[in-house]
Amino acid sequence: MSPAPKKVLALAGGVGGAKLALGLARVLPPERLTVVVNTGDDDTFHGLHVCPDLDTVMYTLAGLADPERGWGIAGDTFWTLEALGRYGAPTWFKLGDLDLATHIRRTELLRQEWALSQITQELCRRLGVKQRVAPMTDQPVRTVVVTEEREMAFQEYFVRRGSQPRIRGVRFEGAPQAAPSPQFREALAGAEAVVFCPSNPVVSIGPILAVGGVRKAIATFRGPRLAVSPIVGGQALRGPAARMLAELGEEASCVGVARRYAGLCDVMVIDETDRHQAQRIRELGMDVAVANTVMRTDEDKEALARLVCELAGL
Amino acid sequence: MSPAPKKVLALAGGVGGAKLALGLARVLPPERLTVVVNTGDDDTFHGLHVCPDLDTVMYTLAGLADPERGWGIAGDTFWTLEALGRYGAPTWFKLGDLDLATHIRRTELLRQEWALSQITQELCRRLGVKQRVAPMTDQPVRTVVVTEEREMAFQEYFVRRGSQPRIRGVRFEGAPQAAPSPQFREALAGAEAVVFCPSNPVVSIGPILAVGGVRKAIATFRGPRLAVSPIVGGQALRGPAARMLAELGEEASCVGVARRYAGLCDVMVIDETDRHQAQRIRELGMDVAVANTVMRTDEDKEALARLVCELAGL
Repeated sequence: MSPAPKKVLALAGGVGGAKLALGLARVLPPERLTVVVNTGDDDTFHGLHVCPDLDTVMYTLAGLADPERGWGIAGDTFWTLEALGRYGAPTWFKLGDLDLATHIRRTELLRQEWALSQITQELCRRLGVKQRVAPMTDQPVRTVVVTEEREMAFQEYFVRRGSQPRIRGVRFEGAPQAAPSPQFREALAGAEAVVFCPSNPVVSIGPILAVGGVRKAIATFRGPRLAVSPIVGGQALRGPAARMLAELGEEASCVGVARRYAGLCDVMVIDETDRHQAQRIRELGMDVAVANTVMRTDEDKEALARLVCELAGL
Repeated sequence: MSPAPKKVLALAGGVGGAKLALGLARVLPPERLTVVVNTGDDDTFHGLHVCPDLDTVMYTLAGLADPERGWGIAGDTFWTLEALGRYGAPTWFKLGDLDLATHIRRTELLRQEWALSQITQELCRRLGVKQRVAPMTDQPVRTVVVTEEREMAFQEYFVRRGSQPRIRGVRFEGAPQAAPSPQFREALAGAEAVVFCPSNPVVSIGPILAVGGVRKAIATFRGPRLAVSPIVGGQALRGPAARMLAELGEEASCVGVARRYAGLCDVMVIDETDRHQAQRIRELGMDVAVANTVMRTDEDKEALARLVCELAGL
């Protein structure tokens, strides 16, 4: 009898996380990969339940993602949104016609009392995604960004306001009371390795860690735990990670990311550009691997995923 | 001081009704026309509240209607519907991308506890429709078609099953308990004339008459009441009116239509083709006018509307 396949639990937010998830999907058999995705950014637009990070991961694994924009479906049109604008509805959150089908279907199934994790499984199946993709929780969690102006939902801060308001803090409403989704629980119990994808440590990985019991489960996880820094040379590859860390008084670098993962992560993968930071991260009690972490092509994604699997001894 | 403008209350279902409504809109100043529309056909698709007849009238008056298909918006695309199909959602009810915006917006405003009549007013305003268009009621009414197979909602009978199942009866659930919408009440009290547009007498005008108090209000209406027969030469110009009348054991002709309106209508406008039926209608106690009632062009619509206004002494 062959041993049970070694499973990987990847924690992801949107674009950066989806890239490494795709790399992992290309190097691992599908049954070995569970991607657990942040849902703190979920929001309601036009009465439709939108899960930006889940959809980015799902579309990316389905080969549908728009590689240019970093959100939505490639080649999508915006007829409905334009017509909604004509009716006076707010249109700052861009929802394409193909993308809208996801939100309409999800909202309808939620209304029929399906759990978000079941819905995600169903949508993925329909799109031919063979890996397990799951929300971090089936309960509502809401990332609230406390800015100098006022508190706002993450999409308002990020999309509508272009991450311009200075932040003072971030809160994950509902997270402590929320339970990990069934797929997340199963992976926390049965995976051989945990991978922190290169997603925003504050508002992508942060909410996942805030879900009831998750931080402890990862702190006491018995297998290797690896993280890829989303910050390279002091800059986030995409999104407001560096800016947010700085405004929170933390270091906007791979070291700042590592500090957030101290006690939760064994190996930090940093970019060649940040080689000089390796010693500072080791001082936090982690091993460091240096690699090209900027995933421009599918080959880059695969190479990074292969390295991560190798470091995890898979 | 000039006398108060003489207002017209038009009762309409979908395509045929919308055609005469457009004719009336072209010959009357906008403040003189109220079009009250059947909502018994309303249904929920993908969790969205769809009002087929209201939308047909609204799109027609806005100059957006698809003249070929008789439903939806001209030039509309079907990207979202196709993607919904990919997710396993039923797609037999064709909802275009522009059309979907109407249903999404309406559903969102209903969720915010707007009345359907307020929503209709708002959508019409946004589309530049200056006439008053109103649902027959703000309460839910559901047209149930009792077929030889089983009972079904009207859209299922009409669209999904192509009006093929033989019918035994029709029921308007919720109608007796429903109150006319505010615009309908106002028009019943203040209009100078009532026009029964050439819509299906069973399932378009039928539900309107079934709304609490409406039949009596029209029976005792003090001004002229006119109807245009939707059945010409024993055939419905569109839809299952003739078939339904026949299956209900009624006469599938303009006489059958007139019988349904006996006591509610003073003048029946029938097509040239049906001139030989005039006497039989007069015997029901109505006057008869003979005209070209097949509205192919906008000029046809205008001419018929002009005749109706003339007959009403407006």
